[in-house]
Amino acid sequence: MQEVLPIMVFQTDFTYKEGAVAAMYGAVRSVSRDVEIVTATHEIPQYDIWSASYRLQQYVQFWPKGTVFVSVVDPGVGTSRKACVALTNDGYYIVTPDNGALTHIKAKHGIKEVREIDESINRLKQTEGTSVFHGRDLFGYCGARLASGIITYEQVGNEYSVDDIVTLDISTPEGSEGYLKGIIEIDDPNFGNCWSNIPVAEMFENGFSYGDDVAITVTKDGKKLYDQITRFGKTFGDVKKGEAILYNNELMNVSLALSQGSFMEQYKVYFGPEYIIEIRKVK
Amino acid sequence: MQEVLPIMVFQTDFTYKEGAVAAMYGAVRSVSRDVEIVTATHEIPQYDIWSASYRLQQYVQFWPKGTVFVSVVDPGVGTSRKACVALTNDGYYIVTPDNGALTHIKAKHGIKEVREIDESINRLKQTEGTSVFHGRDLFGYCGARLASGIITYEQVGNEYSVDDIVTLDISTPEGSEGYLKGIIEIDDPNFGNCWSNIPVAEMFENGFSYGDDVAITVTKDGKKLYDQITRFGKTFGDVKKGEAILYNNELMNVSLALSQGSFMEQYKVYFGPEYIIEIRKVK
Amino acid sequence: MQEVLPIMVFQTDFTYKEGAVAAMYGAVRSVSRDVEIVTATHEIPQYDIWSASYRLQQYVQFWPKGTVFVSVVDPGVGTSRKACVALTNDGYYIVTPDNGALTHIKAKHGIKEVREIDESINRLKQTEGTSVFHGRDLFGYCGARLASGIITYEQVGNEYSVDDIVTLDISTPEGSEGYLKGIIEIDDPNFGNCWSNIPVAEMFENGFSYGDDVAITVTKDGKKLYDQITRFGKTFGDVKKGEAILYNNELMNVSLALSQGSFMEQYKVYFGPEYIIEIRKVK
Repeated sequence: MQEVLPIMVFQTDFTYKEGAVAAMYGAVRSVSRDVEIVTATHEIPQYDIWSASYRLQQYVQFWPKGTVFVSVVDPGVGTSRKACVALTNDGYYIVTPDNGALTHIKAKHGIKEVREIDESINRLKQTEGTSVFHGRDLFGYCGARLASGIITYEQVGNEYSVDDIVTLDISTPEGSEGYLKGIIEIDDPNFGNCWSNIPVAEMFENGFSYGDDVAITVTKDGKKLYDQITRFGKTFGDVKKGEAILYNNELMNVSLALSQGSFMEQYKVYFGPEYIIEIRKVK
Repeated sequence: MQEVLPIMVFQTDFTYKEGAVAAMYGAVRSVSRDVEIVTATHEIPQYDIWSASYRLQQYVQFWPKGTVFVSVVDPGVGTSRKACVALTNDGYYIVTPDNGALTHIKAKHGIKEVREIDESINRLKQTEGTSVFHGRDLFGYCGARLASGIITYEQVGNEYSVDDIVTLDISTPEGSEGYLKGIIEIDDPNFGNCWSNIPVAEMFENGFSYGDDVAITVTKDGKKLYDQITRFGKTFGDVKKGEAILYNNELMNVSLALSQGSFMEQYKVYFGPEYIIEIRKVK
Repeated sequence: MQEVLPIMVFQTDFTYKEGAVAAMYGAVRSVSRDVEIVTATHEIPQYDIWSASYRLQQYVQFWPKGTVFVSVVDPGVGTSRKACVALTNDGYYIVTPDNGALTHIKAKHGIKEVREIDESINRLKQTEGTSVFHGRDLFGYCGARLASGIITYEQVGNEYSVDDIVTLDISTPEGSEGYLKGIIEIDDPNFGNCWSNIPVAEMFENGFSYGDDVAITVTKDGKKLYDQITRFGKTFGDVKKGEAILYNNELMNVSLALSQGSFMEQYKVYFGPEYIIEIRKVK
């Protein structure tokens, strides 16, 4: 029987413009030759903890149980914010500053246990004089020790209450027959799409069907950015190139797109709790 | 004897701006721990099937036989375009929407066999309600099953005629003694070079030699963009910094560059069948 | 006992905009299935040998001894510049054009031995007609042969004198009680920080302590770009968001940042020997 290599998956806001990723991965490889190192992305928008949180729940569940995710979006590096490793209810490890980056994972997967990284043990020794690169010195290093089995989860450090995990405000969509209200929760910046927090299942429960033309408004601080009858379609091919569509995205939430265009740019819709989307049946 | 790990090489237009690559690679890793996952690029220009096609033939032949390439530039995702796996004459597998992305590989390598992916078997089950992310749900998933040996090539799905593969118009260069005509087939966007479809071998056959000064025009829709006597050189060092050069590129086609500058920007030359290059002997 | 996979770490200025990285990695994988291929970065600024040199010394020491680093920033590709493999005093291999890219490694790690790559043996055969892509045909290919043990270090090619290695001018900081002078040696372009060549240890030796407010000037060609009393702090949290700070960076040199802002953009400070930083005690 071949041994299964433990997996580490990294997301940061470091970019590849300099040598930080290479230094972090080197520290990991120096801990263990027997872990797989995978790049999720190093292009999380700078200091954007909300995006770090959302992206984790976009992909964690597609990986094998036991995978160790290291997320480093850390504007408070070196301050009193906790460095932690969370264990989700479904068996994934998340190594991250406890600064809100666990918000979506806590809400969608649930967190079973969380431990504060003990820096006296689980920190790279050769760089102790510096406090600005915990991706390399703490999160990468500790994650590698955990993934490779050098330490157990208990040896990460002391447990603290899951209730004490820092979370950002997360909004819940409202629905009734023929009506849904939610927020644009995140963007798909490459393709210019706007992902809402409204599950497609709630569309069906409230009387909507694929092929319906529905009335959609998107407002920001009360100002209408988008107000049109829009096709609720199954694929981008259901509308002509350049037309808007409400579709079921890869996470099973309804989302707004322009077929082969950028809805975001066209209507100046970005994301966050201030971007309200309302969907109504057309009589 | 150590077992050889099967290789999967990915190219897409997803970028790393969000979590799509991580979700796709997670789906692959959940199928098998025993395949190597390699990133070719996730920066194919958006929806640009021509570039997807060209890039495959830029690198496929440098990989070991049997490598499984997954190419996802898929503006028609979820529509009736076929999802397929092609087997080239020289033993590579290409997993891709059948939308023109096989054009150059078919012309240069030849395709021995092509099969339509059977979605009832070779599709990720947990995401069946969504039709917008076949990179994760179909191409990555099916490619991983094939690469890891869970399915044979025959089990991908039904074979169809190689003649039915969708191809884009590909142009053939013309040559005679002291004269060559072709197109700028692709760019090297990083260094600003313009790659023609004229093999360097045809230069030699038609009486040109390294060191010649040759008369070159590039036109678009009849309008001259470039019209200069240019050195046909072996290395960028054959001309001064900032000077134009006709050189033999990494795929053995002649190409236009400015030494340490951008020919593309300087002369507004991009690529496609409308960009005609002509090369003439200087009397 | 499990066999340890040799490691190859790559940095280039190729970007992922086209297929060059995929072709290079394919050539490596065709040499050996038993080496690990790691991306350090493919976003070194174009033709920027200084950055290539600096980045190597930013991360080499975090990798296991014996790691083979391949660095391809090669404006002189195909000319008479040497292609070499250097062995550092601490046991790392660097495969690179000998064009200045070894400057910082030579100064910080020391180079024990250097060999010129013998192209008659250690060059990819199938592409001998082209001279423009040594990343694929020479550096990647030869590095893979060395890393995988197909050739010994001696079989790379003939040794030449370490004194003959091409180096760029590297500046040494000056210090006295209450005064330090150095240069801005490199940027951290993602976060907009400016890294000096002044070791934090020299700060302490010359009477400075964390928490001090110090007088800092940055000049370029005698013109003052920055001239302010600035906190010498341990973490970015020691100043308010948007405030400047002198901090100890990840390589233990003092550096200038704006907390969650870009010092580089704010003060138009870039890097190189013409950017002089002076630090003085405030009476």
